[in-house]
Amino acid sequence: MRILIVGASGHVGSAAAAALQSKHDIVAVSRSTDPAINLLDPQSISAVFERLGRFDAVISAFGSAPFKPAPELTPDDLTAAFTGKVLSQLNLLRIGLDFVNDGGSFTLTTGILSREPIPTGAAAAMANGAVESFVRSAAGELPRGIRLNAVSPTVLASATGYHDAFPGFEPVSDERLGLAFVRSVEGIVSGRTYTVD
Amino acid sequence: MRILIVGASGHVGSAAAAALQSKHDIVAVSRSTDPAINLLDPQSISAVFERLGRFDAVISAFGSAPFKPAPELTPDDLTAAFTGKVLSQLNLLRIGLDFVNDGGSFTLTTGILSREPIPTGAAAAMANGAVESFVRSAAGELPRGIRLNAVSPTVLASATGYHDAFPGFEPVSDERLGLAFVRSVEGIVSGRTYTVD
Ligand SMILES: NC(=O)c1ccc[n+]([C@@H]2O[C@H](COP(=O)([O-])OP(=O)(O)OC[C@H]3O[C@@H](n4cnc5c(N)ncnc54)[C@H](OP(=O)(O)O)[C@@H]3O)[C@@H](O)[C@H]2O)c1
Ligand SMILES: NC(=O)c1ccc[n+]([C@@H]2O[C@H](COP(=O)([O-])OP(=O)(O)OC[C@H]3O[C@@H](n4cnc5c(N)ncnc54)[C@H](OP(=O)(O)O)[C@@H]3O)[C@@H](O)[C@H]2O)c1
Repeated sequence: MRILIVGASGHVGSAAAAALQSKHDIVAVSRSTDPAINLLDPQSISAVFERLGRFDAVISAFGSAPFKPAPELTPDDLTAAFTGKVLSQLNLLRIGLDFVNDGGSFTLTTGILSREPIPTGAAAAMANGAVESFVRSAAGELPRGIRLNAVSPTVLASATGYHDAFPGFEPVSDERLGLAFVRSVEGIVSGRTYTVD
Repeated sequence: MRILIVGASGHVGSAAAAALQSKHDIVAVSRSTDPAINLLDPQSISAVFERLGRFDAVISAFGSAPFKPAPELTPDDLTAAFTGKVLSQLNLLRIGLDFVNDGGSFTLTTGILSREPIPTGAAAAMANGAVESFVRSAAGELPRGIRLNAVSPTVLASATGYHDAFPGFEPVSDERLGLAFVRSVEGIVSGRTYTVD
Protein backbone atom coordinates (compact mmCIF):
# COMPACT_ATOMS: atom_id res chain seq x y z
CA MET A 1 0.00 0.00 0.00
CA ARG A 2 0.97 3.63 -0.41
CA ILE A 3 0.75 5.19 3.08
CA LEU A 4 0.96 8.86 4.09
CA ILE A 5 2.25 9.36 7.64
CA VAL A 6 1.90 12.87 9.08
CA GLY A 7 4.42 13.34 11.88
CA ALA A 8 6.55 10.33 10.92
CA SER A 9 9.62 12.00 12.45
CA GLY A 10 8.03 12.07 15.92
CA HIS A 11 7.95 9.47 18.69
CA VAL A 12 4.65 7.91 17.67
CA GLY A 13 5.02 8.46 13.94
CA SER A 14 8.44 6.84 13.78
CA ALA A 15 7.10 3.76 15.57
CA ALA A 16 4.29 3.58 13.00
CA ALA A 17 6.70 4.04 10.10
CA ALA A 18 9.13 1.42 11.41
CA ALA A 19 6.37 -1.16 11.71
CA LEU A 20 4.91 -0.53 8.25
CA GLN A 21 7.92 0.22 6.07
CA SER A 22 9.00 -3.30 5.16
CA LYS A 23 5.69 -4.09 3.44
CA HIS A 24 4.51 -0.68 2.29
CA ASP A 25 5.51 2.47 0.45
CA ILE A 26 5.70 5.17 3.16
CA VAL A 27 5.45 8.89 2.41
CA ALA A 28 6.54 10.84 5.50
CA VAL A 29 5.37 14.45 5.91
CA SER A 30 5.41 17.13 8.60
CA ARG A 31 6.00 20.88 8.87
CA SER A 32 9.69 20.38 8.00
CA THR A 33 9.42 18.17 4.90
CA ASP A 34 9.04 19.18 1.27
CA PRO A 35 6.16 19.45 0.66
CA ALA A 36 5.40 20.69 4.18
CA ILE A 37 2.10 19.95 5.90
CA ASN A 38 0.63 21.79 8.87
CA LEU A 39 -2.51 20.12 10.22
CA LEU A 40 -3.57 23.44 11.74
CA ASP A 41 -3.69 24.96 8.23
CA PRO A 42 -6.28 23.31 5.96
CA GLN A 43 -4.77 24.93 2.84
CA SER A 44 -1.45 23.20 3.44
CA ILE A 45 -3.27 19.87 3.73
CA SER A 46 -5.04 20.40 0.40
CA ALA A 47 -1.77 21.46 -1.23
CA VAL A 48 0.03 18.31 -0.03
CA PHE A 49 -2.67 15.98 -1.35
CA GLU A 50 -2.84 17.84 -4.68
CA ARG A 51 0.89 17.39 -5.04
CA LEU A 52 1.32 13.83 -3.71
CA GLY A 53 -1.82 12.24 -5.14
CA ARG A 54 -3.70 9.20 -3.89
CA PHE A 55 -3.04 6.91 -0.92
CA ASP A 56 -4.34 3.62 0.41
CA ALA A 57 -3.86 4.68 4.03
CA VAL A 58 -3.36 7.97 5.87
CA ILE A 59 -1.94 8.08 9.40
CA SER A 60 -1.85 11.10 11.69
CA ALA A 61 0.72 10.91 14.47
CA PHE A 62 0.34 14.53 15.54
CA GLY A 63 -1.48 16.22 18.41
CA SER A 64 -0.75 19.06 20.82
CA ALA A 65 -2.49 20.29 23.98
CA PRO A 66 -1.59 22.50 26.95
CA PHE A 67 -0.86 20.85 30.32
CA LYS A 68 -2.21 22.65 33.42
CA PRO A 69 -4.12 21.71 36.57
CA ALA A 70 -7.80 21.39 35.66
CA PRO A 71 -9.02 24.39 37.72
CA GLU A 72 -6.53 26.64 35.89
CA LEU A 73 -7.58 25.68 32.36
CA THR A 74 -8.95 28.74 30.57
CA PRO A 75 -11.33 28.67 27.60
CA ASP A 76 -8.27 29.45 25.45
CA ASP A 77 -6.43 26.40 26.82
CA LEU A 78 -9.39 24.13 26.14
CA THR A 79 -9.78 25.59 22.67
CA ALA A 80 -6.05 25.06 22.00
CA ALA A 81 -6.40 21.38 22.94
CA PHE A 82 -9.45 21.05 20.70
CA THR A 83 -7.68 22.75 17.80
CA GLY A 84 -4.34 21.00 18.31
CA LYS A 85 -5.52 17.43 18.82
CA VAL A 86 -9.04 17.23 17.38
CA LEU A 87 -9.61 19.77 14.61
CA SER A 88 -6.08 19.20 13.27
CA GLN A 89 -6.64 15.48 12.76
CA LEU A 90 -10.23 15.88 11.54
CA ASN A 91 -8.99 18.43 8.98
CA LEU A 92 -6.72 15.70 7.62
CA LEU A 93 -9.66 13.27 7.45
CA ARG A 94 -12.06 15.73 5.83
CA ILE A 95 -9.64 16.96 3.18
CA GLY A 96 -7.87 13.64 2.68
CA LEU A 97 -11.08 11.67 2.09
CA ASP A 98 -11.10 12.51 -1.63
CA PHE A 99 -7.52 11.29 -2.00
CA VAL A 100 -7.87 7.89 -0.34
CA ASN A 101 -8.62 4.88 -2.53
CA ASP A 102 -11.74 2.72 -2.12
CA GLY A 103 -11.32 0.44 0.88
CA GLY A 104 -8.49 2.58 2.25
CA SER A 105 -8.14 3.81 5.81
CA PHE A 106 -7.41 6.68 8.18
CA THR A 107 -5.70 6.09 11.51
CA LEU A 108 -5.57 8.94 14.04
CA THR A 109 -3.54 9.15 17.25
CA THR A 110 -4.97 9.78 20.72
CA GLY A 111 -3.48 8.54 24.00
CA ILE A 112 -4.10 6.93 27.36
CA LEU A 113 -5.18 10.20 29.00
CA SER A 114 -8.70 9.73 27.65
CA ARG A 115 -9.06 6.82 30.08
CA GLU A 116 -6.38 7.29 32.79
CA PRO A 117 -5.75 10.63 34.53
CA ILE A 118 -2.38 12.23 35.21
CA PRO A 119 -1.85 15.60 36.93
CA THR A 120 -2.33 18.51 34.46
CA GLY A 121 -3.70 16.14 31.81
CA ALA A 122 -7.39 17.18 31.65
CA ALA A 123 -7.21 19.25 28.43
CA ALA A 124 -5.36 16.49 26.58
CA ALA A 125 -7.76 13.92 28.05
CA MET A 126 -10.71 15.93 26.74
CA ALA A 127 -9.20 16.08 23.25
CA ASN A 128 -8.35 12.36 23.18
CA GLY A 129 -11.85 11.45 24.31
CA ALA A 130 -13.28 13.70 21.60
CA VAL A 131 -11.30 11.97 18.84
CA GLU A 132 -12.09 8.47 20.12
CA SER A 133 -15.85 9.10 20.25
CA PHE A 134 -15.75 10.83 16.87
CA VAL A 135 -13.97 7.83 15.33
CA ARG A 136 -16.53 5.40 16.75
CA SER A 137 -19.42 7.48 15.43
CA ALA A 138 -18.10 8.72 12.08
CA ALA A 139 -16.69 5.39 10.84
CA GLY A 140 -20.06 4.12 9.63
CA GLU A 141 -20.67 7.22 7.53
CA LEU A 142 -17.48 7.24 5.46
CA PRO A 143 -17.89 6.57 1.72
CA ARG A 144 -16.36 3.85 -0.52
CA GLY A 145 -15.50 1.38 2.23
CA ILE A 146 -12.96 3.75 3.74
CA ARG A 147 -12.20 2.81 7.36
CA LEU A 148 -11.38 5.06 10.33
CA ASN A 149 -9.63 4.05 13.56
CA ALA A 150 -7.55 5.58 16.34
CA VAL A 151 -4.46 4.32 18.13
CA SER A 152 -4.32 5.28 21.81
CA PRO A 153 -0.95 4.48 23.42
CA THR A 154 0.32 4.90 26.94
CA VAL A 155 3.68 6.65 27.29
CA LEU A 156 6.39 5.28 25.02
CA ALA A 157 9.57 3.73 26.42
CA SER A 158 11.48 5.77 23.84
CA ALA A 159 9.88 9.08 24.97
CA THR A 160 11.96 9.29 28.13
CA GLY A 161 11.25 13.00 28.54
CA TYR A 162 7.62 12.17 29.41
CA HIS A 163 8.25 9.37 31.91
CA ASP A 164 8.18 11.60 35.01
CA ALA A 165 4.76 12.90 33.97
CA PHE A 166 3.36 9.33 33.99
CA PRO A 167 4.27 8.03 37.46
CA GLY A 168 3.74 4.28 37.75
CA PHE A 169 2.67 3.87 34.14
CA GLU A 170 4.45 1.01 32.37
CA PRO A 171 5.99 2.44 29.19
CA VAL A 172 5.33 0.58 25.96
CA SER A 173 7.87 -0.28 23.26
CA ASP A 174 7.88 1.23 19.78
CA GLU A 175 7.37 -2.32 18.49
CA ARG A 176 4.11 -2.87 20.42
CA LEU A 177 2.82 0.55 19.38
CA GLY A 178 3.74 -0.20 15.77
CA LEU A 179 1.59 -3.34 15.83
CA ALA A 180 -1.53 -1.25 16.54
CA PHE A 181 -0.92 0.81 13.40
CA VAL A 182 -0.37 -2.37 11.37
CA ARG A 183 -3.63 -3.78 12.74
CA SER A 184 -5.52 -0.62 11.85
CA VAL A 185 -4.02 -0.27 8.34
CA GLU A 186 -3.99 -3.93 7.25
CA GLY A 187 -7.13 -5.07 9.13
CA ILE A 188 -10.84 -4.91 8.28
CA VAL A 189 -12.07 -3.12 11.42
CA SER A 190 -13.47 0.42 11.43
CA GLY A 191 -14.56 2.77 14.23
CA ARG A 192 -12.17 1.20 16.73
CA THR A 193 -9.69 2.74 19.15
CA TYR A 194 -6.71 0.40 19.51
CA THR A 195 -5.41 0.92 23.05
CA VAL A 196 -1.74 0.12 23.59
CA ASP A 197 -0.90 -0.17 27.28
CA MET B 1 -28.67 20.69 49.84
CA ARG B 2 -29.02 23.86 47.78
CA ILE B 3 -28.76 22.78 44.12
CA LEU B 4 -28.44 24.94 41.00
CA ILE B 5 -29.84 23.27 37.87
CA VAL B 6 -29.02 24.95 34.57
CA GLY B 7 -31.58 23.93 31.97
CA ALA B 8 -34.11 22.63 34.49
CA SER B 9 -36.95 23.41 32.07
CA GLY B 10 -35.57 20.99 29.43
CA HIS B 11 -36.11 17.27 28.97
CA VAL B 12 -33.04 16.20 30.94
CA GLY B 13 -33.08 19.06 33.44
CA SER B 14 -36.72 18.49 34.40
CA ALA B 15 -35.98 14.80 35.05
CA ALA B 16 -33.10 15.84 37.31
CA ALA B 17 -35.22 18.43 39.11
CA ALA B 18 -38.13 16.01 39.62
CA ALA B 19 -35.83 13.41 41.20
CA LEU B 20 -34.10 15.85 43.55
CA GLN B 21 -36.82 18.30 44.57
CA SER B 22 -38.38 16.38 47.44
CA LYS B 23 -35.16 16.34 49.47
CA HIS B 24 -33.36 19.47 48.25
CA ASP B 25 -33.73 23.17 47.60
CA ILE B 26 -33.65 23.51 43.80
CA VAL B 27 -32.76 26.76 42.03
CA ALA B 28 -33.69 26.46 38.33
CA VAL B 29 -31.99 28.74 35.80
CA SER B 30 -31.74 29.06 32.02
CA ARG B 31 -31.75 31.81 29.40
CA SER B 32 -35.39 32.57 30.16
CA THR B 33 -35.29 32.83 33.97
CA ASP B 34 -34.55 35.84 36.15
CA PRO B 35 -31.63 35.97 36.62
CA ALA B 36 -30.89 34.57 33.16
CA ILE B 37 -27.86 32.36 32.49
CA ASN B 38 -26.30 31.62 29.12
CA LEU B 39 -23.55 28.99 29.34
CA LEU B 40 -22.06 30.35 26.12
CA ASP B 41 -21.48 33.71 27.86
CA PRO B 42 -19.07 33.50 30.83
CA GLN B 43 -20.10 36.92 32.09
CA SER B 44 -23.70 35.79 32.53
CA ILE B 45 -22.44 32.79 34.54
CA SER B 46 -20.43 35.03 36.87
CA ALA B 47 -23.38 37.39 37.26
CA VAL B 48 -25.73 34.56 38.22
CA PHE B 49 -23.38 33.18 40.88
CA GLU B 50 -22.71 36.69 42.25
CA ARG B 51 -26.43 37.19 42.62
CA LEU B 52 -27.50 33.71 43.81
CA GLY B 53 -24.59 32.90 46.10
CA ARG B 54 -23.31 29.51 47.19
CA PHE B 55 -24.52 26.00 46.33
CA ASP B 56 -23.85 22.45 47.47
CA ALA B 57 -24.35 21.04 43.98
CA VAL B 58 -24.43 22.44 40.46
CA ILE B 59 -26.02 20.51 37.58
CA SER B 60 -25.76 21.35 33.90
CA ALA B 61 -28.49 19.87 31.72
CA PHE B 62 -27.59 21.85 28.62
CA GLY B 63 -25.68 21.01 25.46
CA SER B 64 -26.09 21.73 21.75
CA ALA B 65 -24.36 20.38 18.64
CA PRO B 66 -25.06 20.30 14.89
CA PHE B 67 -26.24 17.03 13.29
CA LYS B 68 -24.81 16.20 9.85
CA PRO B 69 -23.25 13.17 8.13
CA ALA B 70 -19.63 12.91 9.25
CA PRO B 71 -18.05 13.67 5.84
CA GLU B 72 -20.03 16.94 5.66
CA LEU B 73 -18.95 18.29 9.05
CA THR B 74 -16.99 21.51 8.56
CA PRO B 75 -14.50 22.98 11.04
CA ASP B 76 -17.26 25.43 12.02
CA ASP B 77 -19.65 22.55 12.79
CA LEU B 78 -17.07 20.77 14.93
CA THR B 79 -16.24 24.02 16.71
CA ALA B 80 -19.96 24.67 17.33
CA ALA B 81 -20.26 21.23 18.96
CA PHE B 82 -17.18 21.90 21.08
CA THR B 83 -18.49 25.31 22.13
CA GLY B 84 -22.09 24.23 22.64
CA LYS B 85 -21.54 21.01 24.59
CA VAL B 86 -18.02 21.20 26.04
CA LEU B 87 -16.87 24.78 26.60
CA SER B 88 -20.37 25.78 27.78
CA GLN B 89 -20.40 23.21 30.56
CA LEU B 90 -16.73 23.68 31.46
CA ASN B 91 -17.37 27.44 31.74
CA LEU B 92 -19.98 26.60 34.39
CA LEU B 93 -17.46 24.42 36.23
CA ARG B 94 -14.60 26.91 36.06
CA ILE B 95 -16.63 29.92 37.17
CA GLY B 96 -18.87 28.01 39.56
CA LEU B 97 -16.00 26.38 41.45
CA ASP B 98 -15.62 29.37 43.79
CA PHE B 99 -19.33 29.28 44.63
CA VAL B 100 -19.63 25.60 45.54
CA ASN B 101 -19.26 24.59 49.17
CA ASP B 102 -16.57 22.20 50.42
CA GLY B 103 -17.51 18.63 49.54
CA GLY B 104 -20.05 19.82 46.96
CA SER B 105 -20.39 18.56 43.41
CA PHE B 106 -20.80 19.34 39.73
CA THR B 107 -22.78 17.06 37.43
CA LEU B 108 -22.58 17.63 33.67
CA THR B 109 -24.74 16.08 30.95
CA THR B 110 -23.43 14.11 27.95
CA GLY B 111 -25.29 11.33 26.12
CA ILE B 112 -25.15 7.87 24.61
CA LEU B 113 -23.65 9.14 21.32
CA SER B 114 -20.17 9.06 22.88
CA ARG B 115 -20.43 5.26 22.86
CA GLU B 116 -23.16 4.35 20.33
CA PRO B 117 -23.33 5.87 16.82
CA ILE B 118 -26.44 7.18 15.10
CA PRO B 119 -26.51 8.71 11.59
CA THR B 120 -25.42 12.40 11.66
CA GLY B 121 -24.29 12.07 15.30
CA ALA B 122 -20.50 12.36 14.99
CA ALA B 123 -20.14 15.98 16.14
CA ALA B 124 -22.31 15.39 19.20
CA ALA B 125 -20.45 12.12 19.85
CA MET B 126 -17.14 13.99 19.75
CA ALA B 127 -18.39 16.57 22.26
CA ASN B 128 -19.85 13.95 24.62
CA GLY B 129 -16.59 11.97 24.55
CA ALA B 130 -14.66 15.16 25.29
CA VAL B 131 -16.73 15.94 28.38
CA GLU B 132 -16.61 12.35 29.67
CA SER B 133 -12.81 12.13 29.40
CA PHE B 134 -12.41 15.60 30.90
CA VAL B 135 -14.57 14.60 33.87
CA ARG B 136 -12.53 11.44 34.47
CA SER B 137 -9.27 13.40 34.35
CA ALA B 138 -10.17 16.66 36.06
CA ALA B 139 -12.02 15.18 39.03
CA GLY B 140 -8.83 14.43 40.96
CA GLU B 141 -7.59 18.02 40.67
CA LEU B 142 -10.62 19.85 42.07
CA PRO B 143 -10.10 21.64 45.40
CA ARG B 144 -11.91 21.28 48.76
CA GLY B 145 -13.32 17.81 48.14
CA ILE B 146 -15.54 19.04 45.32
CA ARG B 147 -16.66 16.17 43.10
CA LEU B 148 -17.27 16.11 39.33
CA ASN B 149 -19.35 13.58 37.38
CA ALA B 150 -21.32 13.31 34.15
CA VAL B 151 -24.68 11.71 33.39
CA SER B 152 -24.88 10.12 29.94
CA PRO B 153 -28.40 9.05 29.01
CA THR B 154 -29.80 7.35 25.96
CA VAL B 155 -32.85 8.99 24.39
CA LEU B 156 -35.61 9.83 26.85
CA ALA B 157 -39.07 8.29 26.56
CA SER B 158 -40.46 11.77 27.15
CA ALA B 159 -38.41 13.28 24.27
CA THR B 160 -40.63 11.78 21.56
CA GLY B 161 -39.34 14.21 18.94
CA TYR B 162 -35.95 12.44 19.02
CA HIS B 163 -37.18 8.84 18.84
CA ASP B 164 -36.94 8.55 15.03
CA ALA B 165 -33.29 9.63 15.20
CA PHE B 166 -32.49 6.70 17.54
CA PRO B 167 -33.80 3.66 15.65
CA GLY B 168 -33.92 0.56 17.82
CA PHE B 169 -32.71 2.37 20.93
CA GLU B 170 -34.81 1.62 24.00
CA PRO B 171 -35.94 4.97 25.46
CA VAL B 172 -35.39 5.51 29.17
CA SER B 173 -37.87 6.99 31.64
CA ASP B 174 -37.42 10.34 33.37
CA GLU B 175 -37.41 8.40 36.63
CA ARG B 176 -34.41 6.22 35.69
CA LEU B 177 -32.51 9.27 34.41
CA GLY B 178 -33.34 11.14 37.60
CA LEU B 179 -31.73 8.38 39.68
CA ALA B 180 -28.37 9.00 37.99
CA PHE B 181 -28.44 12.65 39.06
CA VAL B 182 -29.38 11.62 42.61
CA ARG B 183 -26.49 9.16 42.64
CA SER B 184 -24.06 11.80 41.44
CA VAL B 185 -25.28 14.54 43.82
CA GLU B 186 -25.83 12.48 46.99
CA GLY B 187 -23.03 9.92 46.45
CA ILE B 188 -19.31 9.98 47.20
CA VAL B 189 -17.98 9.13 43.72
CA SER B 190 -16.03 11.57 41.54
CA GLY B 191 -14.74 11.37 37.97
CA ARG B 192 -17.49 9.00 36.90
CA THR B 193 -19.83 9.03 33.91
CA TYR B 194 -23.18 7.52 34.95
CA THR B 195 -24.56 5.87 31.83
CA VAL B 196 -28.35 5.52 31.69
CA ASP B 197 -29.45 3.10 28.99
N1 LIG C 1 5.28 10.26 22.94
C1 LIG C 1 4.47 9.49 23.66
O1 LIG C 1 4.93 8.71 24.54
C2 LIG C 1 2.99 9.50 23.42
C3 LIG C 1 2.18 8.58 24.11
C4 LIG C 1 0.81 8.61 23.91
C5 LIG C 1 0.26 9.51 23.04
N2 LIG C 1 1.03 10.39 22.38
C6 LIG C 1 0.38 11.33 21.46
O2 LIG C 1 0.85 11.13 20.16
C7 LIG C 1 0.84 12.37 19.44
C8 LIG C 1 2.24 12.62 18.88
O3 LIG C 1 3.12 12.68 19.98
P1 LIG C 1 4.70 12.49 19.79
O4 LIG C 1 5.27 12.34 21.15
O5 LIG C 1 4.97 11.46 18.75
O6 LIG C 1 5.06 13.95 19.23
P2 LIG C 1 6.50 14.45 18.67
O7 LIG C 1 7.55 13.46 18.99
O8 LIG C 1 6.62 15.86 19.12
O9 LIG C 1 6.27 14.40 17.09
C9 LIG C 1 5.32 15.23 16.47
C10 LIG C 1 5.39 14.99 14.98
O10 LIG C 1 4.37 15.78 14.34
C11 LIG C 1 4.99 16.74 13.48
N3 LIG C 1 4.25 17.99 13.64
C12 LIG C 1 4.36 18.91 14.63
N4 LIG C 1 3.48 19.90 14.46
C13 LIG C 1 2.79 19.60 13.32
C14 LIG C 1 1.74 20.24 12.61
N5 LIG C 1 1.21 21.41 13.04
N6 LIG C 1 1.28 19.68 11.47
C15 LIG C 1 1.80 18.51 11.02
N7 LIG C 1 2.79 17.84 11.65
C16 LIG C 1 3.28 18.40 12.79
C17 LIG C 1 6.45 16.83 13.92
O11 LIG C 1 7.31 17.19 12.85
P3 LIG C 1 7.61 18.74 12.50
O12 LIG C 1 8.07 19.40 13.75
O13 LIG C 1 8.62 18.63 11.40
O14 LIG C 1 6.28 19.31 11.99
C18 LIG C 1 6.71 15.40 14.35
O15 LIG C 1 6.94 14.57 13.23
C19 LIG C 1 0.39 13.42 20.45
O16 LIG C 1 -1.01 13.63 20.34
C20 LIG C 1 0.69 12.78 21.78
O17 LIG C 1 -0.14 13.25 22.84
C21 LIG C 1 2.39 10.41 22.55
N1 LIG D 1 -33.56 14.73 25.34
C1 LIG D 1 -32.94 13.55 25.33
O1 LIG D 1 -33.57 12.49 25.11
C2 LIG D 1 -31.48 13.47 25.59
C3 LIG D 1 -30.87 12.22 25.69
C4 LIG D 1 -29.50 12.13 25.90
C5 LIG D 1 -28.76 13.28 26.04
N2 LIG D 1 -29.36 14.50 25.94
C6 LIG D 1 -28.49 15.68 26.08
O2 LIG D 1 -28.91 16.44 27.19
C7 LIG D 1 -28.66 17.82 26.95
C8 LIG D 1 -29.96 18.59 27.15
O3 LIG D 1 -30.90 18.09 26.21
P1 LIG D 1 -32.47 18.32 26.39
O4 LIG D 1 -33.15 17.43 25.40
O5 LIG D 1 -32.84 18.24 27.81
O6 LIG D 1 -32.57 19.83 25.85
P2 LIG D 1 -33.85 20.79 25.88
O7 LIG D 1 -35.09 20.01 26.21
O8 LIG D 1 -33.80 21.59 24.66
O9 LIG D 1 -33.56 21.73 27.16
C9 LIG D 1 -32.45 22.60 27.17
C10 LIG D 1 -32.46 23.38 28.48
O10 LIG D 1 -31.29 24.21 28.52
C11 LIG D 1 -31.69 25.59 28.54
N3 LIG D 1 -30.75 26.31 27.65
C12 LIG D 1 -30.76 26.37 26.29
N4 LIG D 1 -29.73 27.10 25.85
C13 LIG D 1 -29.03 27.49 26.96
C14 LIG D 1 -27.85 28.27 27.16
N5 LIG D 1 -27.16 28.77 26.11
N6 LIG D 1 -27.43 28.48 28.41
C15 LIG D 1 -28.11 27.97 29.46
N7 LIG D 1 -29.22 27.23 29.34
C16 LIG D 1 -29.69 26.99 28.09
C17 LIG D 1 -33.13 25.61 28.05
O11 LIG D 1 -33.87 26.71 28.58
P3 LIG D 1 -33.87 28.17 27.86
O12 LIG D 1 -34.30 27.94 26.43
O13 LIG D 1 -34.82 28.94 28.71
O14 LIG D 1 -32.46 28.70 27.97
C18 LIG D 1 -33.65 24.29 28.60
O15 LIG D 1 -33.97 24.44 29.99
C19 LIG D 1 -28.11 17.91 25.52
O16 LIG D 1 -26.69 17.90 25.56
C20 LIG D 1 -28.60 16.62 24.90
O17 LIG D 1 -27.76 16.18 23.84
C21 LIG D 1 -30.71 14.63 25.72
